[in-house]
Amino acid sequence: MDQSRMITLTPIGFVKNGVKQTPKWPDWQLETVSEIIVEPKWAEGLEGLEGFSHIIVLFWFHRIADGDVILKVHPMHREDLPVTGLFATRSPNRPNRIGETAVRLIERRGNILRVKGLDALDGTPVLDIKPYLTSGDLIREATVPPWAIEPKHTDMKHD
Amino acid sequence: MDQSRMITLTPIGFVKNGVKQTPKWPDWQLETVSEIIVEPKWAEGLEGLEGFSHIIVLFWFHRIADGDVILKVHPMHREDLPVTGLFATRSPNRPNRIGETAVRLIERRGNILRVKGLDALDGTPVLDIKPYLTSGDLIREATVPPWAIEPKHTDMKHD
Repeated sequence: MDQSRMITLTPIGFVKNGVKQTPKWPDWQLETVSEIIVEPKWAEGLEGLEGFSHIIVLFWFHRIADGDVILKVHPMHREDLPVTGLFATRSPNRPNRIGETAVRLIERRGNILRVKGLDALDGTPVLDIKPYLTSGDLIREATVPPWAIEPKHTDMKHD
Repeated sequence: MDQSRMITLTPIGFVKNGVKQTPKWPDWQLETVSEIIVEPKWAEGLEGLEGFSHIIVLFWFHRIADGDVILKVHPMHREDLPVTGLFATRSPNRPNRIGETAVRLIERRGNILRVKGLDALDGTPVLDIKPYLTSGDLIREATVPPWAIEPKHTDMKHD
């Protein structure tokens, strides 16, 4: 590894939701309410975020060990689906283990955000918060391969 | 800074698009075609990505100097708009300078992705590639504050 090209991050906050183990989809994403406790020194930077219905949360998959990159995976752990490249999935076993989820912002109280739909475990380090923009993030014409259509529902057969 | 909490990343690739300076919106996002040159060792992980019309690119704002975090900014550099918290904007002057853009995937050739709409400069380090999912990323009911409605167009008066 070329050390000169390495990038260093520091969490801006942490997830608090009491979720200690990865639950099955779709329950988690649809129902779980999480708090994002942002470091007080960044609180001023959250002002105005409450004007958005949804936000993008970037976080660190802190429970995945270093070196666990698997280049081909079954999407959503479903062995009935063909293996595909990891970058075509949201698998946490990535070279840079950054998670990205768009969530409903319920409310902001100072440095604390209450959100719904964050698929991150309790204590997950948060790297960034961004507004979800209807110009740019909401792509009405987007299409996906058949296996990725509404995984929230097709995955229910595993419950 | 608590060193024990620091997170280290290594780019998985780089942006190649010949864009050397930040252009004005909206020309860049709408028209620029970029190549993402992914390290060959990760190429296998891109297989299947071509089934998606759009992908999410996480990248590093490498031209922003350390320590330049400004907590309140004018959105889109428009001084006619009230200052707002940086996390309510997509300003690159962030504690962790990660950019996130959903772009059209034109084609994949091995380890090279051709995309349209990536607002990143030539040579930008790419941190991650994810599929844009119609379940999760496409939020039809999302709402934004008035200043954030269609910035691509309202910003044109600066051209």
